[in-house]
Amino acid sequence: MMKASQYEAIESSKLSPPRSNRGLSILDLIFRVIALGATLGSSVAMATSEQQLPFFTRFLKFDAQYDDFPTFAFFVLVNALACGYFAFSIPLSILNIARKGAERSRTILIVLDSIMLGLLTAAASATASILYLAHSGNGSANWLAVCQQFNDFCHQASGSLIGSFGAVVILMLLIIIQGTALARRH
Amino acid sequence: MMKASQYEAIESSKLSPPRSNRGLSILDLIFRVIALGATLGSSVAMATSEQQLPFFTRFLKFDAQYDDFPTFAFFVLVNALACGYFAFSIPLSILNIARKGAERSRTILIVLDSIMLGLLTAAASATASILYLAHSGNGSANWLAVCQQFNDFCHQASGSLIGSFGAVVILMLLIIIQGTALARRH
Repeated sequence: MMKASQYEAIESSKLSPPRSNRGLSILDLIFRVIALGATLGSSVAMATSEQQLPFFTRFLKFDAQYDDFPTFAFFVLVNALACGYFAFSIPLSILNIARKGAERSRTILIVLDSIMLGLLTAAASATASILYLAHSGNGSANWLAVCQQFNDFCHQASGSLIGSFGAVVILMLLIIIQGTALARRH
Repeated sequence: MMKASQYEAIESSKLSPPRSNRGLSILDLIFRVIALGATLGSSVAMATSEQQLPFFTRFLKFDAQYDDFPTFAFFVLVNALACGYFAFSIPLSILNIARKGAERSRTILIVLDSIMLGLLTAAASATASILYLAHSGNGSANWLAVCQQFNDFCHQASGSLIGSFGAVVILMLLIIIQGTALARRH
């Protein structure tokens, strides 16, 4: 009697459709495509930022470009890396839409996403802190606000942060999406 | 006949013990305790770093402390926040050892862990980039290497980065652990 009712319960649970992760998987794909564009834009915007001042002496040329600052070079590198990673993860994400469970590939994506989250956050915030210094200087360290001279350079470099921080937010959402999909699976 | 064999398969899968997440949960707890100590140490080390130079004029006092740099103040704040978060998540982690499934609390931990990962990475890497500037200066922006004067200050501030980056690595491992535990559950 006991066994029969258990059996019935199992049967009915098999008949009721399992909660699908299809919506989450599609959201995942859309986010990855957006993040691909955002990091590509950031990388290009920072790499092309350059400014020459209209005056120069015989010995000195006043120009600024991204590779004067190691942090900015790191920023370009990490954004290019993130862009490549998103391009690589989009096929995985498309496969996840088709498959039901996909625990393994979701776990791999959580791992890779969190590594990229770490790298991208590091690059974006280090760049932001240097740009903050460049904009406002620091009195106690006697560092001047160089953005007063290199205005265009600073503007373009600051703009490139937008895409990068956008990608950071998207990566956090992606980790949450994968975690939810894994928890939902039955 | 078909039904009976299905029934048998279900029965046998119920008899075989499910793979346990107990080891992962204990690892999770240990990592959280270590990270609690690391972020507490970082926060205190940075907040107490201060140096006065042994010479001064009537109008100027030469001293450096963490709140001269907004980035360092942010670093102290975020590390204190992370420390509080770990203290709050340890009870949750202990509960996860006792319980079998714990999908919901694991998903919540993934979400909170990835938020803290973002914050802590941002703070640590922004601080690292400022400290790099302080150590080596920047020729094209004409920023001097102030660590030549404020040697002790820079040393203590750099030391406080260790705990913070340690906590970042631990947070990544924690996200991976939770993801694995969720994927394994049956």
